[in-house]
Amino acid sequence: MPHINLPRGFPGITAGFNYRPETASPMRELAQVLLQAPSPLSRGERELIAAYVSSLNCCHFCRASHSAAAARHLGDTALVERVIANFRTAPISPKLKALLVIATKVQQDGKLVTEDDIQAARKAGAIDLEIHDTVLITAAFCMFTRYVDGLGTWQPNNPAVYQQIGKRLAEEGYARPTVREPILSDEEPVR
Amino acid sequence: MPHINLPRGFPGITAGFNYRPETASPMRELAQVLLQAPSPLSRGERELIAAYVSSLNCCHFCRASHSAAAARHLGDTALVERVIANFRTAPISPKLKALLVIATKVQQDGKLVTEDDIQAARKAGAIDLEIHDTVLITAAFCMFTRYVDGLGTWQPNNPAVYQQIGKRLAEEGYARPTVREPILSDEEPVR
Repeated sequence: MPHINLPRGFPGITAGFNYRPETASPMRELAQVLLQAPSPLSRGERELIAAYVSSLNCCHFCRASHSAAAARHLGDTALVERVIANFRTAPISPKLKALLVIATKVQQDGKLVTEDDIQAARKAGAIDLEIHDTVLITAAFCMFTRYVDGLGTWQPNNPAVYQQIGKRLAEEGYARPTVREPILSDEEPVR
Repeated sequence: MPHINLPRGFPGITAGFNYRPETASPMRELAQVLLQAPSPLSRGERELIAAYVSSLNCCHFCRASHSAAAARHLGDTALVERVIANFRTAPISPKLKALLVIATKVQQDGKLVTEDDIQAARKAGAIDLEIHDTVLITAAFCMFTRYVDGLGTWQPNNPAVYQQIGKRLAEEGYARPTVREPILSDEEPVR
């Protein structure tokens, strides 16, 4: 049960977005710039960072949605699961591994990032903008996950819901609402 | 030293905002809606929540800036320090205390918020929108502080810098850049 009277049938962050459009607008715009707009990091790489940070934050809705979006971009669901389980042994670029080391620290506390972490990322080919966006994607998902969990939102268990959300996020981005109508679900019927 | 090549002389988040205007715009808009736009919570109360969460996140720049903004709104610097030191014994309303209990939990993990916390806030007079905005202000300052610290931004020690920032935030809000020109400082001269 959500802690406040959120619209029924909207899962996770989409319930908060429907409840308060004034705050939804800049939050969706921030996600659009960070995850979809042109960037030296691919959309798949950025969604991987988002899914990984969401898993560190133990937010089911965010982890499942952005894992599905990453898998859609990369065409590889198993890779996403391997990155989340242990990115150090996953078949991704040394640059992305170095950026995920930075993300791991920022998720806890930005002050943990050391000059050595930055030098390792640079040595692996990361440029300033990629380091900046890794820090901010991580920071933003420390916001999104706390918002989703702090409101006690409905987070469906049905994997098909997340496949649908991930497909929309990957294909349409964040500028338009991802869930436009209440989802009818056996788990929590919309009355 | 900042971890990446941020513009010199811009403290804390203003360096990140100058470096990447595309992400600055929605972040400033979010702060404007949450902290300055009309709300059942006063601007002083909202800045108090921001300053308190920033102190939990141990972010000097954010704590000092938003403490100064809160003090400006409330006309009481000592009160802000008392709230940050121990809000439970500070002379603030039972409603604000109940909301700060929720903020304390969301800062750690949104899943820690219980139905009892919500009922206590309602009993003290909080409405849904106030609970929602408390959750989101807290979540947003878990983003802002990680962004500021994760980039290794310059965070002046000089209290006068924060007085100036707090005055601008309180009087002009977040729609316009708070620091418009590099700050000349004995601590770190602009070259």
